[in-house]
Amino acid sequence: MTAPTHQVDFEPIGKRVDVPAGVTLLEAARQAGIGLASVCGGEGTCGRCRVAVMAGQVSPPVDADRRFLSQLELNAGQRLACRAHVQSDVKLHVPKASLVTDQRLQVGGLTRQLAVEAAVRACAVEVPAPTLRDLRSDLDRVTEALDTAFGLRRVAAEPAIVRQLSPLARQTDWHLTAYVRGARGRDPELVGFAAPGRRAAGLAVDLGTTKIAGYLVDLESGEELAAAGLMNPQIGYGEDVISRLVHASRSPEGARELARVVHEALDNLAGTLAEQAGVAREQIAEACIVGNTAMHHLLLGLPTRQLAVAPFVASASAAVDVKARDLGLNLAPGAYVHVPPCVGGFVGADHVAMVLASDLDRADRVAVGVDIGTNTEIVLCKPGANYLTSASCASGPAFEGAHIRDGMRAATGAIEAVRITAGGVQLKTIGDAPAVGICGSGIVDALAELRRAGLMNERGRLDRGAPGVRPNEHGPEFVLAPASQTGTGREVVVTQGDVNEIQLAKGAIQTGIGILLEATETPPEAVDEVIIAGAFGSYLNLDSALDIGLLPRLPRARYSQVGNAAGVGAKAILLSLKERSRAQHIARRTGYIELTTFPGFQRRFAFSMLFPAPAVATPARD
Amino acid sequence: MTAPTHQVDFEPIGKRVDVPAGVTLLEAARQAGIGLASVCGGEGTCGRCRVAVMAGQVSPPVDADRRFLSQLELNAGQRLACRAHVQSDVKLHVPKASLVTDQRLQVGGLTRQLAVEAAVRACAVEVPAPTLRDLRSDLDRVTEALDTAFGLRRVAAEPAIVRQLSPLARQTDWHLTAYVRGARGRDPELVGFAAPGRRAAGLAVDLGTTKIAGYLVDLESGEELAAAGLMNPQIGYGEDVISRLVHASRSPEGARELARVVHEALDNLAGTLAEQAGVAREQIAEACIVGNTAMHHLLLGLPTRQLAVAPFVASASAAVDVKARDLGLNLAPGAYVHVPPCVGGFVGADHVAMVLASDLDRADRVAVGVDIGTNTEIVLCKPGANYLTSASCASGPAFEGAHIRDGMRAATGAIEAVRITAGGVQLKTIGDAPAVGICGSGIVDALAELRRAGLMNERGRLDRGAPGVRPNEHGPEFVLAPASQTGTGREVVVTQGDVNEIQLAKGAIQTGIGILLEATETPPEAVDEVIIAGAFGSYLNLDSALDIGLLPRLPRARYSQVGNAAGVGAKAILLSLKERSRAQHIARRTGYIELTTFPGFQRRFAFSMLFPAPAVATPARD
Repeated sequence: MTAPTHQVDFEPIGKRVDVPAGVTLLEAARQAGIGLASVCGGEGTCGRCRVAVMAGQVSPPVDADRRFLSQLELNAGQRLACRAHVQSDVKLHVPKASLVTDQRLQVGGLTRQLAVEAAVRACAVEVPAPTLRDLRSDLDRVTEALDTAFGLRRVAAEPAIVRQLSPLARQTDWHLTAYVRGARGRDPELVGFAAPGRRAAGLAVDLGTTKIAGYLVDLESGEELAAAGLMNPQIGYGEDVISRLVHASRSPEGARELARVVHEALDNLAGTLAEQAGVAREQIAEACIVGNTAMHHLLLGLPTRQLAVAPFVASASAAVDVKARDLGLNLAPGAYVHVPPCVGGFVGADHVAMVLASDLDRADRVAVGVDIGTNTEIVLCKPGANYLTSASCASGPAFEGAHIRDGMRAATGAIEAVRITAGGVQLKTIGDAPAVGICGSGIVDALAELRRAGLMNERGRLDRGAPGVRPNEHGPEFVLAPASQTGTGREVVVTQGDVNEIQLAKGAIQTGIGILLEATETPPEAVDEVIIAGAFGSYLNLDSALDIGLLPRLPRARYSQVGNAAGVGAKAILLSLKERSRAQHIARRTGYIELTTFPGFQRRFAFSMLFPAPAVATPARD
Repeated sequence: MTAPTHQVDFEPIGKRVDVPAGVTLLEAARQAGIGLASVCGGEGTCGRCRVAVMAGQVSPPVDADRRFLSQLELNAGQRLACRAHVQSDVKLHVPKASLVTDQRLQVGGLTRQLAVEAAVRACAVEVPAPTLRDLRSDLDRVTEALDTAFGLRRVAAEPAIVRQLSPLARQTDWHLTAYVRGARGRDPELVGFAAPGRRAAGLAVDLGTTKIAGYLVDLESGEELAAAGLMNPQIGYGEDVISRLVHASRSPEGARELARVVHEALDNLAGTLAEQAGVAREQIAEACIVGNTAMHHLLLGLPTRQLAVAPFVASASAAVDVKARDLGLNLAPGAYVHVPPCVGGFVGADHVAMVLASDLDRADRVAVGVDIGTNTEIVLCKPGANYLTSASCASGPAFEGAHIRDGMRAATGAIEAVRITAGGVQLKTIGDAPAVGICGSGIVDALAELRRAGLMNERGRLDRGAPGVRPNEHGPEFVLAPASQTGTGREVVVTQGDVNEIQLAKGAIQTGIGILLEATETPPEAVDEVIIAGAFGSYLNLDSALDIGLLPRLPRARYSQVGNAAGVGAKAILLSLKERSRAQHIARRTGYIELTTFPGFQRRFAFSMLFPAPAVATPARD
């Protein structure tokens, strides 16, 4: 007789899963791929996994529930997900505070077919226990078994591995899973052990200036086991890369501090992902981290002084494998982090990963790739040239909601789309919740609409006399949502200052694309394809982006929004040694143009801050 | 015009050196190879390098002298060696307390011709500085120069190396010494950088249970730059290896603590040696550490639980290269420590090094090697068999002076030789100083003489009625030196308890040799050569050792006392990749016999504690 299954319905997330009767709500959430907070690992001791049972039957409250929930809350159906067992079909309300991440990151991105051939494989070994007649060391008996069973000759192992082996072997009666790494024609190396049947997992990370996106994958099947995102905690040391580099180069302590905070964040991310996926940290046997050159240097603790001043030279740019523990990551005891190569200037491995994921190195037509972030990387590919040309612009964090009066990240309640018509302002918010602020795609939309409606001129000045525009001590501002309609009770506005921030950001990107085209003697209309990568780029209204001049005015069909291509590329480099070689190849054949020293840069930048005439004007004034 | 030179005469050491006028006394001591204490590195801030100027002229006292020396001391000619500059020929008295080590360790040992071919070489490189037209990373420009100038392809480098490179290159205007490691057919790897002209140094260590001996050598010439010894601080956790293993296996903290104290001692040793040799720590680009299996496990932090109980299995025994920083050693930032392989049981890499240094693996006759220490390793070589057989005995620290009432290390004032005649007791002390205690060679001598004089019987009982023997609350004891003749004002005696300790120690070794001969079907008289290694063994009176049965009664000519062969072997393995391979070969072809499980072990051990009839009796009684 098999146990009956019940359906668990998670609201407002809108996910459902069928689970056997008796499993906990936390387990059901894991199976549904929902990142329910659970600091204690489901032990009932942290109280973080609160949910409300809106319909159906679960097991009665226990002591742990009473420790964290009032009688009122219990009466209202609130429970700890890790303590409540499913007894019928149930419908749950999951409060935001109980979710591991409350932030919309484009972690799906485009999907690619990939022949998985990871650097690490899981090998099942059974070895005889030591006796008086067989006094071989613990390690020798394992390496000899790997030789016999898998033809792995001279497998190396660090002391850290042996520390894990001796006690584990005696627990599992010498039945083991050995994680063996054999990348790049080197002698194979043991990176960890696990109990029999435990698969090897891999961690891929896109380490952005503002956001970090992480993925846990099965190193054999390539299956994605979990995904999560968080803010880069280095933001506390400066939003832009230059301030962070300067902080790091001022003193060894500064550099260590910036490395430490990102190491901690990555280690927490690994823990979160492992928990989501239901695997042990020790099963994470390999990682791959991509980021721009500044993030790369701060991650590895490399010298930054020379990177922060012209000619902006990296201290190291080649691909490197470092022990995970040297980056403060608690994974398999001998696990490596593969850090793919940087290109030059601030164009780093995230860009290489983006080119790889988008197949831009294999494009058979003229293609431009743009990865919009706090630092925006641009690449131009010309078929036949066997050469890619890249540049990096300091676009700043305005598109991520920073430096904008009511700016916010792309989370619930953020205005993500704006229409200004004769009838007034129409808004779309994330989650259709009352507006609490405006995110990057919303502000681009708002500016395009203000321009179309004639409320803002070519130079970005808001028209003080127009309806909806009112004076403020710092200049004119436009009210998007009155206080009565917001979730905060405060109105949401676009200020003249906001417009100026976006002008700087879009001007930087427009200048970068322009110089790249000029330097490669490519007329804009010769561009057959434009790939827009990055989380912000995926939610961007392309018409608005073209209208404000952020992107070149080409037919819409030539544009593709591909999501977090850098993250997808990181996964590919993690999962395939062939893609790892390809990344090296891409870095080698990608040229780099330093924009700020390009002739006419200043004049071009000033020009790029202008707003062109809109393709279609939609006057809001009668 | 060249500066005049002056002669500096160091007493009571008896060394002289010619130096240019104006150099400091500390510098002169370094050039003379004298390990003058200088914790602060010659900055005048530690006050450790006091010397007394007995004749000649040096620069006048400065503030630092006055901080550490009284007016009386200054008047008596005392000075800090690091602050006093030579102005004429001078004669100095160096007090013992100012010397880095005051302990007689056999650090010279036998010398061997060796073709130096170290794992690390120093490569001089000059590279162009970055410009706007040459934006290669700092590391790339160095690795490309190494490729061009030395044919080194794909030189790898860790972040730790790059951390050193970027600032150093800008200080030296891109003229650098690169330390490149290329062992074992692997891709070459950068392990450090230095200013132009700085040679690569190597650190060889014999890590004994009781004593640690260290050597600093030039990795190109093989020249010994400095030598020093110190006590193993793990003694605080138990004198014998089993107590330490048990301590380490009780908790992870225990294991970490035992590793930490030895790491600190080794790091201090590296600093002392570097200071003696006048090289920077960063120039130490490779190390080699040998020790018995227990020392090996505690050094590397390997699991010890299974090593402390039958069948005494190592967790790992293969040769391993670990980063020096992972053992708490501050050397070149990427330096490795090579740890040669262990054989089995407690027979470790120190034994392999001893066999290698003594050429026992190449002997063309039956040879026995004995390395006497707290743990004594024995090896038997039979020509033609292409096979070595080894065993390990827990001889304990009695020969190092421990557990002996008036026992002490082989330092000034230790009784090292004893004669008992009808006329009384004749003693020889180290440094001919008044006796303060007795060291290992002295106690062996004393027992042999007591037996020859008929004052002690076959079972080791002192004869209560004999002259010089008197009763004590714990049994009879024999007075070696009356209180009036010692440096402490307390008499030095040999107690019945002392005899029993030595009985246990010599019984263990005698049993080990006996079983090894029996197991290999070798009659004792077939042994053509006996090699006695180790510091204690070098000072041992062989006649006495043969008389008490510690060593088999073979013609004296068959014995050689070779000093610290393990240390010499460690140097050879450090300096030559060929010797490194040979060490692996020796470990592979050396069999191991576990003595305690050999048939008849107990009976044989009991028998071995007896003292045989002396070869020549010298009755003290008329």
